[in-house]
Amino acid sequence: MGLLRFEIAMSLDGYVAGPNQTREEPLGEGGEGLHVWALELDAWRKRHGREGGETNPSSAVMEEGLARTGAHVMGRKMFGGGSGPWDEAEPWNGWWGEEPPFRKPVFVLTHHPRRPLELTGTTFTFVTDGIESALAQAQEAAGGKDVQISGGADVCNQYLAAGLVDELQINLAPVVLGDGERLFEGVGPDLKLEQLRAVEAPGVTHLTYRVA
Amino acid sequence: MGLLRFEIAMSLDGYVAGPNQTREEPLGEGGEGLHVWALELDAWRKRHGREGGETNPSSAVMEEGLARTGAHVMGRKMFGGGSGPWDEAEPWNGWWGEEPPFRKPVFVLTHHPRRPLELTGTTFTFVTDGIESALAQAQEAAGGKDVQISGGADVCNQYLAAGLVDELQINLAPVVLGDGERLFEGVGPDLKLEQLRAVEAPGVTHLTYRVA
Repeated sequence: MGLLRFEIAMSLDGYVAGPNQTREEPLGEGGEGLHVWALELDAWRKRHGREGGETNPSSAVMEEGLARTGAHVMGRKMFGGGSGPWDEAEPWNGWWGEEPPFRKPVFVLTHHPRRPLELTGTTFTFVTDGIESALAQAQEAAGGKDVQISGGADVCNQYLAAGLVDELQINLAPVVLGDGERLFEGVGPDLKLEQLRAVEAPGVTHLTYRVA
Repeated sequence: MGLLRFEIAMSLDGYVAGPNQTREEPLGEGGEGLHVWALELDAWRKRHGREGGETNPSSAVMEEGLARTGAHVMGRKMFGGGSGPWDEAEPWNGWWGEEPPFRKPVFVLTHHPRRPLELTGTTFTFVTDGIESALAQAQEAAGGKDVQISGGADVCNQYLAAGLVDELQINLAPVVLGDGERLFEGVGPDLKLEQLRAVEAPGVTHLTYRVA
């Protein structure tokens, strides 16, 4: 069985999204600054169906993460569409359009049942019975590869606090957000980590840690 | 004139000291975990009057920081001795013994006047008229070299918020403290940074940023 891991972009002051997240600004105020390093990257553009782009040390890190991932788990907030029961008349299908960049099974944690959503290359399965159930379903679907928690912070923190995460990669961006959603919120000092790797790249440092 | 910079060890959740700092535990609960990477280092041992130790990529980073520093500024809390007027009968002379590791002029920010304290190799000057005065005095004493803010978080944050810092080095330790003193507290999103360097070393990553 693969590992449970996540890759998340974080500010120097520990935020993975800025304050006041909205449907139009899903990363909150200033949150797009966390991902500037990625946007012109060949590996990111390829994943999002575009050509060209820059090759730098982030490329290999991103490709490696893609190659080892067999399934994703994400929170309802990251999938989007607001809170409460799903709107069946006008269903929210995520931020990513008809061909989402995951191309792996995605399990969405929610309190509200919904039928699976099949888009080109990616099927979203909605899980209402908790993080351990979502993990078990994702591991089953991952075919021996890793399960990646795609975010947001709250879901990463829930899995960290439950002691279920094996490895984490922080893409540390040179920004200070001042407010927003914090990684490690409520996780506390019991989490013991070992630094595995630090990769310097333009506008970002990729830090990998193993949970002891 | 040199730069105003600081080097500070930080946890992954943004703390530079743990909660409940005391005279016996000046770094707070868990705070010693921020410095584990340094303790066996040759450069650190030499600075603290000991021989031997390990040489690794942190050594050069530490030696470089020492070489470019001409004077230090620190907060009253980092100098220690509690709050309020200084006790003249039983004066507190810092955490570092008769031969402090600074060996450069040190300017201590305090609200309470005190005569300069001369110890072997290091003189502490107590500054009561604010951070800009302390900086001016330290720059004068630094002889063209950099002024280093030695901490704590509050003093770093005051200089950051005032737009006076030129460069900062975060020694990012693979620990999560959960509570304590946060770097960047109250600094907000107006601080614009450029990543200069990331150096991977055993148990730490040294990250350097220039303030734009």
